[in-house]
Amino acid sequence: MHIETLGYIAAFLTTAAFFPQTIKTIKSRDTASISLAMYVMFTTGIAFWLGYAFLIESMPMIIANIITFVLSATILVLKLSEKKSTTRQ
Amino acid sequence: MHIETLGYIAAFLTTAAFFPQTIKTIKSRDTASISLAMYVMFTTGIAFWLGYAFLIESMPMIIANIITFVLSATILVLKLSEKKSTTRQ
Repeated sequence: MHIETLGYIAAFLTTAAFFPQTIKTIKSRDTASISLAMYVMFTTGIAFWLGYAFLIESMPMIIANIITFVLSATILVLKLSEKKSTTRQ
Repeated sequence: MHIETLGYIAAFLTTAAFFPQTIKTIKSRDTASISLAMYVMFTTGIAFWLGYAFLIESMPMIIANIITFVLSATILVLKLSEKKSTTRQ
């Protein structure tokens, strides 16, 4: 099996496993159970993985981390906007 | 900044972000809200990332994925044992 194929299978599995819960959160806009600190750490970590993936030129990592970054950044924006609206009340 | 340093920062952030929720689940043994299918996919995906990390000799990826694999495999075992105990009742 070619090395990159292993990476693409890994990328598909972990991204696909991450997808349903994330889409459910985005659709429901229910971020109450999400820890802001954890999500800031996670999203920042994904950004670092993305930078690392470009530097080591790993296409599977680049693709997986772009998708994961877009999803987690979306949730982070929802979480921050939820925090703003609760502080205004 | 050295390429591997970027990888180690990424490994620390995403693993640390994953840690609290995982430890909470392991301590509480409450896996009811966890989707078995998603966790099988995620854990399998992490195993593939680990294989890929060894092949491309990326130490940050090896470390991050060993820790994540141990944690997610633990939750998977808990989830499977919960399923067994509910089917026996």
